[in-house]
Amino acid sequence: MISEIKLQDLRAGEFIDEKVKEISDAVGVGIAINALSGGVDSSVVTMLGHRALGRNLRTVFIQNGLMREGEPEMVARIFRKLGVEIEIIDTHREFLYALAGITDPEKKREAITQAFYKKVFGRIVRESGAKYLLQGTILTDVDETVAGIKRQHNVFAQLGIDPQETFGYRILEPLIQLRKDGVRAVGKSLGLPQEIFARIPFPGPALAARIIGEVTEEKLTIVRKATSVVERLLSDRGAFQYMAILHEDRVTGMRDGKRDFGRQIEIRCWDSIDARKATPTKLPFELLEKLAGDIISEVPGVVSVTYNITSKPPSTIEAV
Amino acid sequence: MISEIKLQDLRAGEFIDEKVKEISDAVGVGIAINALSGGVDSSVVTMLGHRALGRNLRTVFIQNGLMREGEPEMVARIFRKLGVEIEIIDTHREFLYALAGITDPEKKREAITQAFYKKVFGRIVRESGAKYLLQGTILTDVDETVAGIKRQHNVFAQLGIDPQETFGYRILEPLIQLRKDGVRAVGKSLGLPQEIFARIPFPGPALAARIIGEVTEEKLTIVRKATSVVERLLSDRGAFQYMAILHEDRVTGMRDGKRDFGRQIEIRCWDSIDARKATPTKLPFELLEKLAGDIISEVPGVVSVTYNITSKPPSTIEAV
Repeated sequence: MISEIKLQDLRAGEFIDEKVKEISDAVGVGIAINALSGGVDSSVVTMLGHRALGRNLRTVFIQNGLMREGEPEMVARIFRKLGVEIEIIDTHREFLYALAGITDPEKKREAITQAFYKKVFGRIVRESGAKYLLQGTILTDVDETVAGIKRQHNVFAQLGIDPQETFGYRILEPLIQLRKDGVRAVGKSLGLPQEIFARIPFPGPALAARIIGEVTEEKLTIVRKATSVVERLLSDRGAFQYMAILHEDRVTGMRDGKRDFGRQIEIRCWDSIDARKATPTKLPFELLEKLAGDIISEVPGVVSVTYNITSKPPSTIEAV
Repeated sequence: MISEIKLQDLRAGEFIDEKVKEISDAVGVGIAINALSGGVDSSVVTMLGHRALGRNLRTVFIQNGLMREGEPEMVARIFRKLGVEIEIIDTHREFLYALAGITDPEKKREAITQAFYKKVFGRIVRESGAKYLLQGTILTDVDETVAGIKRQHNVFAQLGIDPQETFGYRILEPLIQLRKDGVRAVGKSLGLPQEIFARIPFPGPALAARIIGEVTEEKLTIVRKATSVVERLLSDRGAFQYMAILHEDRVTGMRDGKRDFGRQIEIRCWDSIDARKATPTKLPFELLEKLAGDIISEVPGVVSVTYNITSKPPSTIEAV
């Protein structure tokens, strides 16, 4: 049974000292490894591990090719300022290969999870020689699974590490007693910049969740560029979430004065408190036209842009 | 060479008397037939033919299953008020059969044209025993084809009537010297009601042009209901054109509290002078929300509604 530390009981400074000592004691002179996504949980774990182990912690950022424009470089830059070197490992071909031919959203998510753990991160862990894995698991993540040893064995299975081999491997989960609010408090105390906390929620499958139908490199390029426009024009509207979605359907448009099929981008921008209910943000029409105009001129192949005007429910925040 | 009658040279009353006499002289005591779509051209031809021939003109309205809610009944009601009986012939199964499995927009249009002429109207003409066909061809229709006899032979070929059989058949095209503005003037003079002229432009392939991907009865039902909502809420906005488009792409939504895939409807509403350039109508956000809400509640299976915010070009008025 994991004993929860509630936000009101958390003393961030003491928590940090304690976790740094625990990691240091556990790893000793060994080598540890962790995967940083740039999200709050993995960022906090990276900072704790770095304080405990310095260069004996290897932090990898797995570039899966599904990220927003410039995302790995931005995360590496933030951590470099904090004195932490991040290793960006480009594995986008492996993810594209894993996603080829898959159109069902659930199967897409599963393919990304499998490619991440079994193929990419599993291989990196084995090849690194590191026997200590730092993970950003929080209490909310384990609520619905069996806590403790059994779950940890599952992590190894997920990584494709044979139970026979697991002897000597150890998983460290310094945030497992916290919930999101506690992790944020610890992150601030560790000096993580506002950029890490202020980022718009982004789904696990990243841009693959913003593509209807099969994920291909061409489609990722399109939705990535459209996402840049949407984030540039909507980041100051105070919206809960905003996104560009690339449709599989082709629509008629004009290219070089001739009828031709083109791509359609759907924009969603949500007002919401907790994501359970949401309404489309009442953007001024001039901004909608600016969004459409910028996407048309900056994203090759797009001839049509729509704005979602449905509430949740029955819509959901994401399309896929 | 056809000699054009320009609007400023047209005296509608004289034109009507002349054409009524021509039709009457040509058909004599025989039987003529025409297909009424409810558009201005075929409506005017129906009135001229009726004045000339009375009950010796058989006017058929071919229900192809691709029409808006209540459309055949509305057209029949308008003409009944004018003393003209219209025969509605339900051929929707033949059109659905012809459209099955076709996703390419051009092939869809072609399938509808072929089903209309070769299969449905060709058969009706042959079975009717009528040797005179009244057609609402206007000068704009022939501008890009070879006028005269050659074109008329093409009509028979299109109808699947063997050139050997065509002896005795005759096509009458009383509007062939006019353009649209002249046809409207004649229509008003004939007493056609505002409903015929005021209707929003509707594409030849009807609701099939408002469905992305294969046309099925289920999809026709959905887009027909959505079209009713859109026409009900947007008819008083002074827009050039407005429509509901059913996407092939499925998006995630909530049904009965569970995640489920659903349909998405795209609304387009255009401001335009001549359809060559167009901009999305700046509808108030409250109206957009009302559109989405009414579609969600009235059209089963739809979980998401978007509004198109692109200008033409690069968009086109229609999606298919």
